[in-house]
Amino acid sequence: MRVGVFQFEPKFGAVRENLDRIAAAIRPPVDLVVLPELCTSGYQFTNHYELEELAEEIPSGPSTVRLTEIAGKTDCTIVAGLPEQDGDRFYNSAVVVNGDGVLGTYRKIHLFYEEKDFFTPGNSPLEVFDIGAAKIGVLICFDWIFPEATRNLALQGAEIISLPSNLLMPYCQDAMVTRAIENQVYTVVANRIGFEARGGKKPMYFTGNSQIADCKGNVLYKGSGNKQEFHVEKVHPTLAHNKWITERNNIFEDRRPEFYESISLTLNHPNELVNDDISN
Amino acid sequence: MRVGVFQFEPKFGAVRENLDRIAAAIRPPVDLVVLPELCTSGYQFTNHYELEELAEEIPSGPSTVRLTEIAGKTDCTIVAGLPEQDGDRFYNSAVVVNGDGVLGTYRKIHLFYEEKDFFTPGNSPLEVFDIGAAKIGVLICFDWIFPEATRNLALQGAEIISLPSNLLMPYCQDAMVTRAIENQVYTVVANRIGFEARGGKKPMYFTGNSQIADCKGNVLYKGSGNKQEFHVEKVHPTLAHNKWITERNNIFEDRRPEFYESISLTLNHPNELVNDDISN
Repeated sequence: MRVGVFQFEPKFGAVRENLDRIAAAIRPPVDLVVLPELCTSGYQFTNHYELEELAEEIPSGPSTVRLTEIAGKTDCTIVAGLPEQDGDRFYNSAVVVNGDGVLGTYRKIHLFYEEKDFFTPGNSPLEVFDIGAAKIGVLICFDWIFPEATRNLALQGAEIISLPSNLLMPYCQDAMVTRAIENQVYTVVANRIGFEARGGKKPMYFTGNSQIADCKGNVLYKGSGNKQEFHVEKVHPTLAHNKWITERNNIFEDRRPEFYESISLTLNHPNELVNDDISN
Repeated sequence: MRVGVFQFEPKFGAVRENLDRIAAAIRPPVDLVVLPELCTSGYQFTNHYELEELAEEIPSGPSTVRLTEIAGKTDCTIVAGLPEQDGDRFYNSAVVVNGDGVLGTYRKIHLFYEEKDFFTPGNSPLEVFDIGAAKIGVLICFDWIFPEATRNLALQGAEIISLPSNLLMPYCQDAMVTRAIENQVYTVVANRIGFEARGGKKPMYFTGNSQIADCKGNVLYKGSGNKQEFHVEKVHPTLAHNKWITERNNIFEDRRPEFYESISLTLNHPNELVNDDISN
């Protein structure tokens, strides 16, 4: 199958223009296209009114409808980050759509920085979506730093982890290589470029370098740091079924879950609650 | 505090000679010295008789006694991999010793490749050892690929993860940078060099590149791939108490353990049990 990523600079608030650029960028043949986080709306909300304006219901909102139309015309499945409204709650979500409609929605469970002022953390179980050509897991941006998130999806049979992103820090791409190796899955990072400095807020520089890594951690594609790019790679999702990394080591069968119990417990930690600068 | 690693080529079966080289290499001032996996014995056992010859009880065995003596003379704590015998069981273990004796032992829980023919997998809970200058966790080599192992130790308050290793594959060092970042702990890999091709077995080339990474994932030291090296870095273990990576994100408090439950369950996986070559 063919996996594509489209990295671009969404223009804040220009939903129709951003969707037009997505529609113009996707060139078949491609089976799965991963787009950045909040790619219909832009990232840096300065007040709740902006969020109410730009967030949409799923599946009825105009962005999801348009993405479904684009997916239909290009005969692919799209994973796209967008702000979701559900009643009086707002989520940093990603929809999985094909030409027939919405296959699933993921609501980001680990919120980054000021996202906490705007969004409710996701509260639905992590799910694997069968898109026909592959079984995919969806996480969003900062979820990368929690190995448990990718692990959960891989244990459920995800063959490809797609990660719509608006990354500021440079660590994620290398970490997603480690995630690929430790789970023997493909990882696909679609990261936006450009910057936002809205309403007197600290400028945010987004770092591009979208990336596709195979199950063995080989980087098949790494995008530039600052250019709009649509890129497609051939991948073989069934390779992710093979968890043997030596003829004696199957990384799932070799797991010792009895040693991992503390990981699902809420613990008290002796950490000093020292604030640190975001630049770290 | 000062953390040192000594990477060298242990000579198979030459326990006294290997310990002499360790004694000659460690130069104070240093507070913690991490040595490779099975560094007293060598790695590639060809039959059980060799293992019975070279494995020792802890703390009474001569290697542990000698390591204690070396630690005393150099005023440091040593983490050293060695084959342990306990009754009729054999473990791929690491001892933590200072001049007063044994502070703790770790028995490798994830065995690699033909280690499974010789050793019993460790069955004691993962433990953090207080060596005075720092709280350290000990894992061994292949444990690196299971993020749960480092996570468990970090959640228990480990400030430094020490990883005695005999690595064949090239992924571990980059992964230990990810482990450092995702847990905000120091990671110290002591990896042997050289090769072994004993009794008609497939040659094993060990890859060196011992590494010290700080809590932010900066690589403070990376050794050569093929030279004996003793190297010391200054580190600040209390920095590992700070789990804030932005002023709004504490990577421990931001965890969502309710989403991680599957990680400590023994699951049935739909994986095809396809053998793969060790060279992968």
